[in-house]
Amino acid sequence: MNDNWLNESDTPHEECGIIGVFAPNEDVARMAFFGLYTLQHRGQEAAGIAVADGQVMSMHKDTGLVAQIFRPNTLDNLKGHYAIGHTRYSTTGSSLARNAQPFMIETMHGPLALAHNGNLVNSAELRQKLLEEGVGLSSSSDTEVMTMMLARAKGKTWNERIKSCMQEWRGAYSLVILTRDCVYAARDAWGFRPLSIGLLPHGGFAAASENGALRTLGCEAIREVKPGEIVTLSENALVVNQAVKPVNPSARCVFEFVYFARPDHVWDGQSVHHVRQRLGEELARETRVEADVVIPVPDSAIPAAIGFSRATSIPFNDGFIKNRYIGRTFIEPTDSLRKQGVALKFNVINENVLNKRVIMIDDSIVRGNTMGPMIKLLRTAGAREVHVAITCPPISHPCFMGVDMGNYDDLIAHHRSLDEIRIHIQADSLTYLSLDGMMRAVGRKDGYCQACFTGIYPIDVDVISAKTGFEKNTK
Amino acid sequence: MNDNWLNESDTPHEECGIIGVFAPNEDVARMAFFGLYTLQHRGQEAAGIAVADGQVMSMHKDTGLVAQIFRPNTLDNLKGHYAIGHTRYSTTGSSLARNAQPFMIETMHGPLALAHNGNLVNSAELRQKLLEEGVGLSSSSDTEVMTMMLARAKGKTWNERIKSCMQEWRGAYSLVILTRDCVYAARDAWGFRPLSIGLLPHGGFAAASENGALRTLGCEAIREVKPGEIVTLSENALVVNQAVKPVNPSARCVFEFVYFARPDHVWDGQSVHHVRQRLGEELARETRVEADVVIPVPDSAIPAAIGFSRATSIPFNDGFIKNRYIGRTFIEPTDSLRKQGVALKFNVINENVLNKRVIMIDDSIVRGNTMGPMIKLLRTAGAREVHVAITCPPISHPCFMGVDMGNYDDLIAHHRSLDEIRIHIQADSLTYLSLDGMMRAVGRKDGYCQACFTGIYPIDVDVISAKTGFEKNTK
Amino acid sequence: MNDNWLNESDTPHEECGIIGVFAPNEDVARMAFFGLYTLQHRGQEAAGIAVADGQVMSMHKDTGLVAQIFRPNTLDNLKGHYAIGHTRYSTTGSSLARNAQPFMIETMHGPLALAHNGNLVNSAELRQKLLEEGVGLSSSSDTEVMTMMLARAKGKTWNERIKSCMQEWRGAYSLVILTRDCVYAARDAWGFRPLSIGLLPHGGFAAASENGALRTLGCEAIREVKPGEIVTLSENALVVNQAVKPVNPSARCVFEFVYFARPDHVWDGQSVHHVRQRLGEELARETRVEADVVIPVPDSAIPAAIGFSRATSIPFNDGFIKNRYIGRTFIEPTDSLRKQGVALKFNVINENVLNKRVIMIDDSIVRGNTMGPMIKLLRTAGAREVHVAITCPPISHPCFMGVDMGNYDDLIAHHRSLDEIRIHIQADSLTYLSLDGMMRAVGRKDGYCQACFTGIYPIDVDVISAKTGFEKNTK
Amino acid sequence: MNDNWLNESDTPHEECGIIGVFAPNEDVARMAFFGLYTLQHRGQEAAGIAVADGQVMSMHKDTGLVAQIFRPNTLDNLKGHYAIGHTRYSTTGSSLARNAQPFMIETMHGPLALAHNGNLVNSAELRQKLLEEGVGLSSSSDTEVMTMMLARAKGKTWNERIKSCMQEWRGAYSLVILTRDCVYAARDAWGFRPLSIGLLPHGGFAAASENGALRTLGCEAIREVKPGEIVTLSENALVVNQAVKPVNPSARCVFEFVYFARPDHVWDGQSVHHVRQRLGEELARETRVEADVVIPVPDSAIPAAIGFSRATSIPFNDGFIKNRYIGRTFIEPTDSLRKQGVALKFNVINENVLNKRVIMIDDSIVRGNTMGPMIKLLRTAGAREVHVAITCPPISHPCFMGVDMGNYDDLIAHHRSLDEIRIHIQADSLTYLSLDGMMRAVGRKDGYCQACFTGIYPIDVDVISAKTGFEKNTK
Repeated sequence: MNDNWLNESDTPHEECGIIGVFAPNEDVARMAFFGLYTLQHRGQEAAGIAVADGQVMSMHKDTGLVAQIFRPNTLDNLKGHYAIGHTRYSTTGSSLARNAQPFMIETMHGPLALAHNGNLVNSAELRQKLLEEGVGLSSSSDTEVMTMMLARAKGKTWNERIKSCMQEWRGAYSLVILTRDCVYAARDAWGFRPLSIGLLPHGGFAAASENGALRTLGCEAIREVKPGEIVTLSENALVVNQAVKPVNPSARCVFEFVYFARPDHVWDGQSVHHVRQRLGEELARETRVEADVVIPVPDSAIPAAIGFSRATSIPFNDGFIKNRYIGRTFIEPTDSLRKQGVALKFNVINENVLNKRVIMIDDSIVRGNTMGPMIKLLRTAGAREVHVAITCPPISHPCFMGVDMGNYDDLIAHHRSLDEIRIHIQADSLTYLSLDGMMRAVGRKDGYCQACFTGIYPIDVDVISAKTGFEKNTK
Repeated sequence: MNDNWLNESDTPHEECGIIGVFAPNEDVARMAFFGLYTLQHRGQEAAGIAVADGQVMSMHKDTGLVAQIFRPNTLDNLKGHYAIGHTRYSTTGSSLARNAQPFMIETMHGPLALAHNGNLVNSAELRQKLLEEGVGLSSSSDTEVMTMMLARAKGKTWNERIKSCMQEWRGAYSLVILTRDCVYAARDAWGFRPLSIGLLPHGGFAAASENGALRTLGCEAIREVKPGEIVTLSENALVVNQAVKPVNPSARCVFEFVYFARPDHVWDGQSVHHVRQRLGEELARETRVEADVVIPVPDSAIPAAIGFSRATSIPFNDGFIKNRYIGRTFIEPTDSLRKQGVALKFNVINENVLNKRVIMIDDSIVRGNTMGPMIKLLRTAGAREVHVAITCPPISHPCFMGVDMGNYDDLIAHHRSLDEIRIHIQADSLTYLSLDGMMRAVGRKDGYCQACFTGIYPIDVDVISAKTGFEKNTK
Repeated sequence: MNDNWLNESDTPHEECGIIGVFAPNEDVARMAFFGLYTLQHRGQEAAGIAVADGQVMSMHKDTGLVAQIFRPNTLDNLKGHYAIGHTRYSTTGSSLARNAQPFMIETMHGPLALAHNGNLVNSAELRQKLLEEGVGLSSSSDTEVMTMMLARAKGKTWNERIKSCMQEWRGAYSLVILTRDCVYAARDAWGFRPLSIGLLPHGGFAAASENGALRTLGCEAIREVKPGEIVTLSENALVVNQAVKPVNPSARCVFEFVYFARPDHVWDGQSVHHVRQRLGEELARETRVEADVVIPVPDSAIPAAIGFSRATSIPFNDGFIKNRYIGRTFIEPTDSLRKQGVALKFNVINENVLNKRVIMIDDSIVRGNTMGPMIKLLRTAGAREVHVAITCPPISHPCFMGVDMGNYDDLIAHHRSLDEIRIHIQADSLTYLSLDGMMRAVGRKDGYCQACFTGIYPIDVDVISAKTGFEKNTK
Repeated sequence: MNDNWLNESDTPHEECGIIGVFAPNEDVARMAFFGLYTLQHRGQEAAGIAVADGQVMSMHKDTGLVAQIFRPNTLDNLKGHYAIGHTRYSTTGSSLARNAQPFMIETMHGPLALAHNGNLVNSAELRQKLLEEGVGLSSSSDTEVMTMMLARAKGKTWNERIKSCMQEWRGAYSLVILTRDCVYAARDAWGFRPLSIGLLPHGGFAAASENGALRTLGCEAIREVKPGEIVTLSENALVVNQAVKPVNPSARCVFEFVYFARPDHVWDGQSVHHVRQRLGEELARETRVEADVVIPVPDSAIPAAIGFSRATSIPFNDGFIKNRYIGRTFIEPTDSLRKQGVALKFNVINENVLNKRVIMIDDSIVRGNTMGPMIKLLRTAGAREVHVAITCPPISHPCFMGVDMGNYDDLIAHHRSLDEIRIHIQADSLTYLSLDGMMRAVGRKDGYCQACFTGIYPIDVDVISAKTGFEKNTK
C-alpha cells in the first residue's frame, strides 16, 4: 500500500471551502485570505483567490496550505473590491495543480472565475456534451465543466446565464462566481452543502461555507443562500434570484453536523457544537454498556463525548493526546519499529484508562483501519474493557455528491456485519447511533441526505457515469 | 512592533526537547526522528539528529518542523546505532541556523555531539573564559560553550570529562551527549528540566524530555535521570554516575505541569494531566465568583477547566475554536480590518457563552496582550460577564533558567497590580491560583523552582551576566 | 524603469524551441528532455514535455530552466513512445506559469497537446471567434487558441483537422502536435520558423527547431518540414501532407542566421556558422574604416568577427569577457556604484584594445541601450577609436511574427538617423550591413522576411489586432 | 559510477575566489557582491559575505551561485564599511554547507572572519595541535583551523597575531581577514595564489583574487599583495607588513595562466589572455603535424588556438558548440541513448571539420575521460584526422596546494606513457607543450610552481598528512 498511514485518518473527506467577498471600501484580497484561513479545515491541498477591480481580474492559486501560498506581495498583486476564494481537499496527486480552484477564464462577456464545493452527478455527460460541441477541457474537474458551460450559456446577464446552467447541473454544488464587477453565490436545488451570507461591518457582503469564516471577517451570517438561489452581492442590498425550484424536502449533508463543520458553524439554524453534544446524548441513550470513563477521539468527537457523559453520568476525560504539529511526513516506521508499537498520531494518557472500562466516542467508521490500532493503544495502556460508540449509523454506501468516503469496496460497513466489524477492530462492544437517534439530535425529521447510511440517494445516480471521464486519457 | 500577533501566544516558551537512543538492533536515526516528532511541541524552530556507528558521526539539522527537515534519504544517510536529537524553540531570527542543535565537533578524543535543554546562568563567564583561553566561538549558544568545554576537559574517559564540566556548569540543563560509540544523558544538580529513560522493547535504551516520546518508541519510562547524574546508555544495563551532588531540595520547573509538558507526560512521578485537573480544582476553591459556564483557553487549559467544573459543578463547555492549521503566516490584517474584528487564531462558539456569566480558565498571563482581545471576543459573542481564572500565581520575575518569559519590563505582573491587570484586560474579575494552591495541586511542599512567582532564585543569578555576550558582536 | 539591466541584452528575443519524438523502442521522455536541453538558448523562462503511450497522455511543465524543471522521477512519470516538448522565452512575468507549453486538453477525439513556435497575426480575431462560439479561454496564448480550434475542427482524422485549422491560421508557426498515438509536425505557408526532421538511429523520427537538437539525439536532419506541410512521424516512414499551399517566395526569418540559431544549425540548407562568417566578410566590404583590431561582442558575433578579420586582414582578437555564470540577479548597483563604473556583464581585456583603433562587431542594435556602455568600457580601457559594425541593416519595424523586438517606440532605428544613433552610442563610426550585403552572405535573393528592416510585411498585419486581446481582462 | 558526466569536465579545479573591501563612503556589502559575482568562475558551490560596521559583524553564506544566495534584503542586512567575501568550489557534497566561507567567530579580541584561497600542507598537524590544546573543530576545513589559530595567537594587534600565525602556516594561502574595524589581505611566502589590491574611485581599497573583480568595482589593480605580506586596507593608505620572509624564487601557480584565471586578469605583471596566445604559439612550434584547421575546446583554449593559428598559418575556426545553459542536471542518458551518441555538453559544427585534418587545442588533460568522446564527436562529424595539442606538459603529480586534480591514481599521465594516452583517447597524434615552451610563453625562467609536471614540490609535503584528518570521524 502506498498510503502514508501517518497522514491518513479514517474519516470522510470534504472537497472544499469557498468564500466570496464584495467590500467597496476594503482590501478585498486580504479579506478573502483571512476567510480561507478559517476554512482551512475543509481542504489542505490547494487554495486560490481571484480578484476583480471592475475591469481586470487577477488570480493566484497553488498547492499547499493557505498560509504558505499567499505572501504579502502575492496579495498586493490582487487588486480590487470583488473576490472569491477556494481551499481544496484532493485525492489525486499528479494533477493537483491543474485542478486547483478558482477556475478563471476569458469569455465573450468578459472574465469569469468560479469556485465550487460539491460534485455533479451528471458531470460525465455534461463533459461529454462539451467535448462534442468542440470545447477542449484541460482538467478533470467539474469546475472547469461548469465554467465552460457558463462561457457559452444563453442569457443577457450573468444572472440569466447562471440560471440557465443551474437548470442543467444535477448534484451538489455551492458556488461563488466572480465577474469583472460582481460576486454571485449560488446553491443547488437540494441544498447539499452550506453557504451563508454575512453583512460586512464597513459595507458590502461576504459569502462563506461556514459562519466561522464570516465571523473572522467581523460579521455574522444573516441568511443562508437557499436551495436553488443565486444571490448577488451588491453595494446596497442582496439581490436574490430563485434560479431553480428547490427540491422538497431538501437534502442537506448530515455530515456537516457529524464531522465536517467547525463547531462554531451554524447549519440549518442549529449550532454544530450543540448538535454534536446532542448526538452524544442520543448515543448515550442507545448504548447499553457499563463503563468508568467516556473518552473522545480528538478533536471532532469531543462535544459528543461531553454530551454522552452528561447523559450517562459516566465521567468524561481525555484519553488520547493528538500530535498537533503532525504535518505531512514522508518517513514511515520500519516493520520492526511498527511491531514495537511506534505510534505517532496519538498517545494515550495511561492513568485515565488504566484498569478502567472505557467508552471511546468517535464520529464515524469508514474503512475501519484506524479504530483497531487505537483500541490496541488503549488496551496496552491498561484499559480493562474498550467499548466503541459512533455518533452516526454504519456508512454502507458511497457518496456521489462530493464527499470522499471511497467506493463500496472500501466501506467496511458495506461488506461486514456489526459484529464482524466489532471483531475486526477488537472492541468489547460496538454501538452505532441509529438513524432516528441521529435525526433526533439534529432536531429534524427530514431535509437531510441519508444516502451513505441507507443507499437511498436523493438524486438518480448513474454510478458508472460518476466514475468515468477525463482521467483515463490525460494525467 | 515587528511581532506577528497571529503567530504569537502569551505563554512562556520552552527552549527545547531532546532525545537520545542506543538501539543495538535498530534503525536508530528513524527512532530519533519519531521521538523528536513527539517532542515537536517543545520547539518548532529548528531540529537536528546526530548519529554514530562506532567510528563515524554524521548529522543533519536545519530550521523548520521535524517533518519538513527529515526526508527518507536524509535519514538513510545517518547510519549507526547511537543517536541524539533536538528540537528547538528560538527567539532569535537572524542567527537561527547557526544556533540549531545538536552541536557536533571533532575533539582530540574523537567526534562529539551534544543536545541541550536549559540555560546556564554562568554562561557569560564560561564563554569569556573560553575566549580568553583562545577558543573561538561561532555561535551565541550555551551549547557551543558546553561542547567546547567538553573538548578540553580533563579526564581519561568521557564520563570523567562530562563530570568535570558539570562541576563548572551552573544553571538548568538536561543533556544528551553522543560520542562515536556511546550515548550519555545528564542532568543538572537542581533537576530543573525533565529527562527520563526507557528500556527499548528490542534491546537498548532511550532518553527523552517526555514520556510521550518514549511511548512513541514502544517503551515506558523506567526512571528519571536524577539531579546531578550522568547515565550511560549501554547494551546490557544503564551505568549511573553521580557527577555532582544533587541540590536539596531540588528545583524542578513547575511550568512543566502548568503548561509545557504534554498531558501524557509523567513528571516527578505524577501525571501532568492529573495535576492539571487538580490545578483546576484548587483554582475552583480560590475563585469566588458565580458563573454559568466554565470554558478553557484551548488546548493547554482544558484539563484544568474540567477540574474546575467538577469542583464547582458549574458546567464545562467549549467556548473557543482554535484554528488548527494556523502555521506561520506573513499576512497581517490592515488596521481597518483589525477594527472590524478580524480574528484568526480563535473563534467563539456563540451559543455557549450568549447571555452567560463565563469563567475562562487559562494557564498563565505573561505579557497580557492576548487576554484582552479574547475577552472582547467573548463579550462580542454575548457573554454577560467574563471572569478570568489562571492556574498559577502572577508571573512577576523573569526566568534565567531557559524559559523565555521576556524580561522585567515585559511581565505585566511585574509592574501592575492584580486590579490594574484586571482593568487592562477588561475582565469582570481576575483570579490567580495561590502559590500554596498550586503546590497542593502538584502534591509537593518543595522541590520546585518558584522564582518567576517569588523572585527567589534557586541559584545566584548575575542578571547582567545572563544578558551579555556574543550577540553584541556578531549576528 | 523596472528592467534589470544586468539580465537584459539588446537583442531580439525568440519565442521558443520545440521538439517532437516518436521512438518505438526508446525512453521517449528522456529523449525529449535532451532535445529541449539543446534548445535551451531559444527560451529560458519555461519548459514542458507531454508524452503519450497509445492511450494516456501525461505532461510536466513549469517555469525555469530545462535542467531545473525535470528530475529523474518527473521523467519516469512520463511514459510512452510519443512526445513533444517546448522551451519558452516570455516577456510577461505574472502569467508565466499559465502560458507555459505544451498546452494539453481533452477533446471529443481524445487527448491533444500542442507546442508552438511563432505568432499568429490574426490571433485576436480567432480568439474573438472562439469566445463568441462560447469557448472560454484560460490564457493569453496563441497556443491555447490553436488547441481549442483543433478540438472543434472539422475532419475525420487529426490530419484533416490540423489541415482545416491551418487554413485559418495566418502568421508564423512551427508546431509539434501530440495525440494519444501520434506526433505531427507542421509549419506555416511562409516557412517563417525552422523545423527539421531526423531519422533516429534505433527507429522512429524526431522533429526539432534546430539540427543541434537532432544531433544530440544521435541523428542528422533528413529534411525540413516544408512550408504548409503536416508531417506525421510514424513507425515505417514519414507521411507528408501539403495542408496549405506554400507562399512563394517564402518568408524565412533571416534572424535565425543573424542571431537566433546556434552556429551548428543548418537553415535553408546552409550552415549558420558559415553564413555568419560571410556576414562578417560582407560587412568588411562595406565598412570603410582603418583599424588595428577586430573584436566581437560575445558570443553570437564571434564568427562574423572572424570573417571580418579574414576579409580585411585586420587582426581578430577577444576584447570582452562575458560573465558565464551571470544568471538572474535581483541586485542592482546603487547610483553611486554605477557612476564608478560597476559593470557585471562584460569586462574588457585591456591590453587587446589599449591605444588601438577598435572595430567592434555585433549582430544587431534594437533599443540601443547596451552599445553605449560597451563603447565606454572600451574607451576606459584605452581604445583610441571605437568603430561599430553591425551584421544586419537597421531594425526600424517591429516583428509581428513572434520575435520580440519591442514596438515602434522601442526601436532606436525607427526614430533616429544613422548619425543620431552613432552619436547616441558615442561611436567613432557606425556601419550597418546593407540589405543586399546581408542577402549576399545568406546566398539567396529572396525567400526571406525582411520586414523588420523594410516595413514590408509578408502578411497583411492588423497592427491594432496584434496587440489586443485577453491581457486586458485577466492577468 | 556515480559521477554525472554531464556536469564534469576534465580540468583541474580551483578552490576559490576571495574579495575584501573597505569603502568609507559606500554600500560595502553590495560591492562585495559584485566582486564575488565576477569571481564566480573560481567556485560555484557556495559563497558568503561578512560585513563589519566598526562594532558588529554580520554574515550571510550558503550553497549555490552568488546570484542565488544574495537577495536585496540579504544585502540590506549586512551593514557596514568593511567586508570580505568568498566563492567556493568543493568536491565534498555532504559537508558543503558546514565548509562554506567566510568563517566567522567571536574571539577575546572581538569578532573575526576569514576567507581563504589555497591549501595548507601542514593542516593535519596544525589541526591535531589545536585538538590537543582542547579546541573543538566543527568542520574539515583549513579555514576553521586558521581562524581558531588566530583566535589564540600571541600578539597585541591583529597584525601581530596574523604574523605569528603566518609563521606556522605552510602551504598556499591568499587570505582576506575581517575584524570589527579592519580588512586585512595576506599571502603565503611562496606566492602560490593571486591577490591584488585596487584603489576605489570614491575612497578606500579593495583586494581580490583577480583584476576583473577590481575592474567590476571601477578600479584597476595598483599592486599585488606580495609573498609573505599582510596589507591593511585603511582609509588613507595601505599599510604593508612583511610577516614572513618571501621564499626565493617564489612558486606562483602556473595554472592561473593555463586555465584558472579569466583572460582579463593580470598575473605576475602579464595579461593572462596574452600568455594564453603565446602558449598557443609555443605549442605551434613544438607540434609537428600538418592540418587544415585549428579548433579550440571552448572556452579556455580559444586564445591559445588563435595563437597557434597565427604561428602556423593553419586557419582557426570554431569546431565545438558548448551548451551555455548547461547547469546541473540529474538526468542521465540510458545506455541505449548513450550508444546512439546522445551528447549534451558539446555539439560539433560539422562543416568546419568535415574531411579535414583537425588540430584540437585544449589546456590540459587530467583524468583523460572527456578527450576520447570529443575526438569521437569530431570523427563522427567527418574529421579525417584528429590531432590533439595541449598547452601544458603532462600532469603526472597531484597538487597539495589546493588545486583539485585528484590523486596519483586519477592522473592518466602518472600511469600511462604519451603513446598510451594517445591510444586511450584515440587521437592521431598527441602533443603536450614542453616545460620550457610553457615557461617561454609565460616569459619567466623561474618563480613558478611546476610540481604537477615534475613532482618537485616547492614545500616538503607529507603526503599522508595531507590526506588525513577530520573527514574520517564526522561527516
